[in-house]
Amino acid sequence: MSKEITSRNSDYSKWYNDLVLKAGLADYSAVRGCMVIKPYGFALWENMRDQLDKMFKDTGHVNAYFPLFVPKSLFEAEEKNAEGFAKECAVVTHYRLKADPNKKGSLMVDPEAKLEEELVVRPTSEAIIWNTYKGWIQSYRDLPLLINQWANVVRWEMRTRLFLRTAEFLWQEGHTAHATEQEAVAEAEQMLEVYAEFVEEWMALPVIKGVKTESERFAGAVNTYCIEALMQDGKALQAGTSHFLGQNFAKAFDVKFSDKENKLEYVWATSWGVSTRLIGALVMAHSDDEGLVLPPRIAPLQVVIVPIFKGEEQKAQIDARVGSLVQELKKAGVRVKYDDNDNARPGWKFAEYELKGVPLRLAIGARDLENNSAELARRDTREKMSVSMDGLTDTILQLLDDIQLRMFAKARDYRDAHIIPADTMEDFLRILDGEGGFVSAHWDGTAETEEAIKEKTKATIRCIPLNNPEENGTCIFSGKPSTQRVLFARAY
Amino acid sequence: MSKEITSRNSDYSKWYNDLVLKAGLADYSAVRGCMVIKPYGFALWENMRDQLDKMFKDTGHVNAYFPLFVPKSLFEAEEKNAEGFAKECAVVTHYRLKADPNKKGSLMVDPEAKLEEELVVRPTSEAIIWNTYKGWIQSYRDLPLLINQWANVVRWEMRTRLFLRTAEFLWQEGHTAHATEQEAVAEAEQMLEVYAEFVEEWMALPVIKGVKTESERFAGAVNTYCIEALMQDGKALQAGTSHFLGQNFAKAFDVKFSDKENKLEYVWATSWGVSTRLIGALVMAHSDDEGLVLPPRIAPLQVVIVPIFKGEEQKAQIDARVGSLVQELKKAGVRVKYDDNDNARPGWKFAEYELKGVPLRLAIGARDLENNSAELARRDTREKMSVSMDGLTDTILQLLDDIQLRMFAKARDYRDAHIIPADTMEDFLRILDGEGGFVSAHWDGTAETEEAIKEKTKATIRCIPLNNPEENGTCIFSGKPSTQRVLFARAY
Repeated sequence: MSKEITSRNSDYSKWYNDLVLKAGLADYSAVRGCMVIKPYGFALWENMRDQLDKMFKDTGHVNAYFPLFVPKSLFEAEEKNAEGFAKECAVVTHYRLKADPNKKGSLMVDPEAKLEEELVVRPTSEAIIWNTYKGWIQSYRDLPLLINQWANVVRWEMRTRLFLRTAEFLWQEGHTAHATEQEAVAEAEQMLEVYAEFVEEWMALPVIKGVKTESERFAGAVNTYCIEALMQDGKALQAGTSHFLGQNFAKAFDVKFSDKENKLEYVWATSWGVSTRLIGALVMAHSDDEGLVLPPRIAPLQVVIVPIFKGEEQKAQIDARVGSLVQELKKAGVRVKYDDNDNARPGWKFAEYELKGVPLRLAIGARDLENNSAELARRDTREKMSVSMDGLTDTILQLLDDIQLRMFAKARDYRDAHIIPADTMEDFLRILDGEGGFVSAHWDGTAETEEAIKEKTKATIRCIPLNNPEENGTCIFSGKPSTQRVLFARAY
Repeated sequence: MSKEITSRNSDYSKWYNDLVLKAGLADYSAVRGCMVIKPYGFALWENMRDQLDKMFKDTGHVNAYFPLFVPKSLFEAEEKNAEGFAKECAVVTHYRLKADPNKKGSLMVDPEAKLEEELVVRPTSEAIIWNTYKGWIQSYRDLPLLINQWANVVRWEMRTRLFLRTAEFLWQEGHTAHATEQEAVAEAEQMLEVYAEFVEEWMALPVIKGVKTESERFAGAVNTYCIEALMQDGKALQAGTSHFLGQNFAKAFDVKFSDKENKLEYVWATSWGVSTRLIGALVMAHSDDEGLVLPPRIAPLQVVIVPIFKGEEQKAQIDARVGSLVQELKKAGVRVKYDDNDNARPGWKFAEYELKGVPLRLAIGARDLENNSAELARRDTREKMSVSMDGLTDTILQLLDDIQLRMFAKARDYRDAHIIPADTMEDFLRILDGEGGFVSAHWDGTAETEEAIKEKTKATIRCIPLNNPEENGTCIFSGKPSTQRVLFARAY
C-alpha cells in the first residue's frame, strides 16, 4: 500500500497529492477546480470545526447564516474589496434551463430567464453581511455583534490543488461590529490568538503570529493579522487571518449607530476566517513517506485494534477481551475501532492504518492473551512496544497525549531551525534555494522593494511578527535604512 | 412586545411572518427569495442538525462534501431528475467580473470569461454524487456506501416564504448505494423511520408516514416515502422525504459493480433529505399569539432566570443564589441563561422570552429568597407556579420533560381530530373550507383524477399511509372502484 506513495524527496508535490487521494481525504470532481471531501477527510474537518466552533462560542460568538449570492451592486459597494475579488467571481446570470430544441435530451440556458441583476457566488461575505447589519444596528445597545458563519465560498482560481487552493472551499467567517476602534482591534487580535491556540494545540502545528504588509492585506482591510506555518519542504503556509476592517464597510453600506451621547457614528468592523486549507497544512507539516501522521486530538480515529488469530476459537477469545477494552476506551472518550474484517490480512491493515495516520495501533494475538499483553505501535515514531493489558486505557491515554506533544515539538524544532537571518541577497537566495524556511531580513518598508524581491526570488513577506524587536539595519534589496527585520518565504 | 404580532385568527399567514421576524429566527435579505438565518434561528437549527447527525451516524452513515456546482452535461444525464428541476436552476455562466468602462466604480460581467460549459448551482446532488460514485464503486466489497452531506441548495422559486420556501436553503441529503434492491428499499424505509422519530420525539410534532403518488414523487425516484405533519391552520406540510431511486442514477451514470459471482450489475440507490423548512413547520405547529412555543429538547434556551429586585443589596443576594443554581442546571445539561441585564424591566423580559418560546421562565425576587421559593412559568400552558428552591433542578428537569410530552400530545390530539373521512365531494370541500385537516377519501388511482381534484379543491394527495387498510369503495371524484382511502389536504 505505502509503496504507491511517491516519497517526499523524489517529488514533494506529488507525494502530497498521492497522500490526499490514497488516504481517502479528498478526490477530484467533474467540476473544474472543485474537490470532493471524502468521508475520512470530512471526519477530520468535523473534528477541527467542532473545536473551533467551541472556541468561538467560548469567546462570546454566535452562528448565523447569510445568502450564498451577493447582488452585483452590493458586491461592488466596498471598492477595494470588490476590486480584490472581481477577477475570481463565479457569476449567476440566469435562473432557468429549458429543453434544447436542437438537441434531444439536452438542456440549455433559457435566454428568457436572464436575471435583471447578476448574482456573485460569495467569495467572502462582508458585502452581504454589512448590508444586513445596516438593518440590525441602530444604537450602541445593538453592539457588539459577534457573529460567525460556517459556509462554502467560491473563488475562481486558475491553478488549483486539493485542499490548498480550490475553486470552492469550506470555511468559517466571523464578522463582528463594534462601537469603538479599540474594541474592534482587540477583537481582531483575540481571534488571531484563538486561531494560534487551535492550530498549535489541536493541529500540533507551531505558528508565527504577525501582521501582513499593505500589499498582502485582505482587500478592504485596514490591518490583516495572520498566522504563518512552515511545511516540510521549507515553504510557508498562511493558516488563518483576522482583519481589522476599520469603518470601510460601515461607510460603504452606511451603517451608523447612535452612541451614548446620541451622536451618529460609523460602526467598526472585523472579519476572520480559516478554511479547509488547514487540512492541506496538516498533511504537509506532519506526514511521512508511509502516509498521514495525524495529531490525536483531531484524528478521526485515535486507536485501531487489529486481531491476529488462527481459527474461530482464538478469534472468539480475542473478541471477548477486546470487547471490554473498546468499551472502556470509548468511555474514556477515545475514538477507537476494532477492525476484525476478515477480508484483509493484518499486514494489509497495518499499512492501511499507517497510510491513514491513525496515532496508535494495537495488535492482539493469541499469545498476547496468554501473556496478558498486546503490541502497541505509535504512528509518529513508528515505535513498537509490548504493553500490559492491565491499565491499558491509561497507557493509551498517556501515549495519545505524548504523541500530540511530540508532534508539536518536532514541528516546532524544525520551524525554529528554519528561521534564518540573511543580510545579503546572496544569502537570501542561498537559503531559499537550499532548505528553505523563513528568511529574516531587513526591508525598507516600500511596496516597490517587496514586489521587486518577489519578482526576483518568488518569496513574499509572510508577516511582520507581533512584538517584532526594533533593529537598525539596511534593506537587503535597496540598501535603504530599515528599523526591523521581517519574515520572507516562498509560500503556498 | 407581543402586541405587535398579528393573531392567528386574524391572519395566520401574517402571524407566521411576524413571529419569524420578531422572534429573531430569520430576516429577509437583499437577494430575491433568499433569507438570513439569524443567530436565534440558527441555534435552533444547530440543535436539530446535531441530533439528526447523531441519528445518521448511529445508523452507520458518514458525512462527506460534494461540489456546489453541477456541470450541465451531468445535470441532464438522469432525464426525469433534470426535467423536474430544470425550471428552477440558478446557472453560473461566467467566472470573472471586470471594471465597467462606461460606469466608473461599477463592475460588469467579463464577456471574455464565459464558461465553456454552464454550471448549475445544485438543486439536489444526485447527479454530481453518482458521477463521483462511479469512481468509487467497482465491487460488492465497496458497497453499501452510506453517505450524507450537510449543504446549501438553490431552487429558484417564484413565490417564497421564510423557511417554508426559499431560493436557497440548508439541508442534509443522504445518498446511499447498495448491491440489492431489497437493501436499498430497507434503507429508504429506515431513514423514513429516523425522520419520523426525530420529528415526533424532538420537535414534538406527530407525523403520518406514507408514500407519495406517482405524480408527487421526487423526480428520478421509483418510490418516495414521506412524513406529513399538520399545521394549526389545517394545512399539511411535508416534513421529510426518503426516496428509493432504483437503478435510475446508476444507469444514467453507468455505475456497475461486480457481485460475488463476478457478474456486473447496476447499483441500487436511495436519497433522503430534510431541510430548514422543518423550522417553519415547528413554528406553525406549536406557537401561539404571544410568540414561539419551542419543544425543550431543541430549544436554544430551555430556562431563563429573571431577577426582580430593588437596589444593589437585593440584587447581590439574588445573584449569589442564582449563581449556584445556574451551575447546577448546566451540570445537569440544561441550557439556561440568567438575564440580569439592567437595561430592561422584568415585564419587558417576560414578554421577550415568551416571544422567543423559552420553555421555562424562573423569576426570583427578594421575598422569594426569604421564602426559599421562586416563581416558575411554563411557556406552553402559560401556567405560573410557586416552587421551592430545594430540589429545583429536579423540578425543572421534570417540567422540561413534561412540556415536551404535552406539546406532542396536544399536537397529536389536534392532528387526530383532523383526519376526517369524506365520501362525497361536498363533504370533501366542506372539510377543507372549514377547519381543514387531512381528508381521508377513496381515489381511483389515476393521475387524471388526482389532477382534477387538485384543480377543483387545491388539495393534493399528501400520501398513501404505510400499512393502509384495504377498503373497497368508489372514488370520491370519478365514482370508479377504489381499494383504499388516501389522505388529501391543502398543503404548504
